[in-house]
Amino acid sequence: MTSGLWQARGKISLTSGGFSVHEVTHKVAGWLNDEGAREGLLTVFIRHTSASLLIMENADPDVLADLMDALKRLAPEDDDLYRHRTEGADDMPAHIRTALTQTHLSIPVTEGRMDLGTWQGIWLLEHCAQAQSRELVLHYVGE
Amino acid sequence: MTSGLWQARGKISLTSGGFSVHEVTHKVAGWLNDEGAREGLLTVFIRHTSASLLIMENADPDVLADLMDALKRLAPEDDDLYRHRTEGADDMPAHIRTALTQTHLSIPVTEGRMDLGTWQGIWLLEHCAQAQSRELVLHYVGE
Amino acid sequence: MTSGLWQARGKISLTSGGFSVHEVTHKVAGWLNDEGAREGLLTVFIRHTSASLLIMENADPDVLADLMDALKRLAPEDDDLYRHRTEGADDMPAHIRTALTQTHLSIPVTEGRMDLGTWQGIWLLEHCAQAQSRELVLHYVGE
Repeated sequence: MTSGLWQARGKISLTSGGFSVHEVTHKVAGWLNDEGAREGLLTVFIRHTSASLLIMENADPDVLADLMDALKRLAPEDDDLYRHRTEGADDMPAHIRTALTQTHLSIPVTEGRMDLGTWQGIWLLEHCAQAQSRELVLHYVGE
Repeated sequence: MTSGLWQARGKISLTSGGFSVHEVTHKVAGWLNDEGAREGLLTVFIRHTSASLLIMENADPDVLADLMDALKRLAPEDDDLYRHRTEGADDMPAHIRTALTQTHLSIPVTEGRMDLGTWQGIWLLEHCAQAQSRELVLHYVGE
Repeated sequence: MTSGLWQARGKISLTSGGFSVHEVTHKVAGWLNDEGAREGLLTVFIRHTSASLLIMENADPDVLADLMDALKRLAPEDDDLYRHRTEGADDMPAHIRTALTQTHLSIPVTEGRMDLGTWQGIWLLEHCAQAQSRELVLHYVGE
């Protein structure tokens, strides 16, 4: 049990590629280091509904490729399935793939580092067909 | 970096319609305003296993309709698929649709407002066939 | 509105069975009690990418059995579907089932107890075919 808590807020901006994945683990870890975080709770939030966040294996890049394929099978591009078609054939599937993954992640921080397992990384998943400007908000509360 | 943190807890109750969606963004924003939240972290938690939470587009209502349809395809009503049938044909699919979406959301708050993107709203998804009384718990930590 | 916040960090280790579910509600509640938590926010984080967390009904065990089956249908074992095959036929499906459920949960705490609904329990879902050592990190901030 400890006290003397403070908080910090940050932002990460990036330009994604269409249907792509982007590891942001190091950017998030760098921000925690810059803020002097020691023990606490980190939250990462993505301000979009057609791109999402996920903690997933960061060893074999095939894992993320297979995962994106799986999301495409679960939420296929098929205009016959959707009412919402005015923003392109990729838009409604992108919303569903976002819904099936995460808009926010919270991760405990210990001795200045996120408590990620050996194989865990933080990924941004871009579910749109075109490159997009994406913005993540970071929040930290702790010591 | 800031200090002088406090927390608050609140509740939102609502009666849902069967297989329906309910935007609660304004109720949550109103509560934050009433509490005097400025900078911090909001958490919304739903106390049920057959209704869920989701941050999703709030511009075109077709998006939510298509999303509910997609969840129905992913977890169909079909007694042959499930052991758990005593609470009605809608109950086990409702649990699965809940599992595929969210029971809690955490959202950073800046200058008194949630850091939602332009098109993001907070939705309660009712996965039961009948209207239900639903309860959300709100937690805020910050300044 | 309250102040005088502190935080605590804990750990739960367990050995799972292959393709099994493990309720950890009581272990988490016991930790909160040991720490003297009264009002605040609990976060549970799993340090793995082939096992996940979920808040789900804890009354009828058939619900979890049906849910695990549903996840198997959504992410089947089928080498033809995946590039990532070197760690066994169960590995890539386990990653996808993890992605469709949760790596972290945050739950408000009131009067020393998690604000879970009557039927909600906290589950670890093991998506690997073999038993594994699994580690959860707990974080609490509050009074």
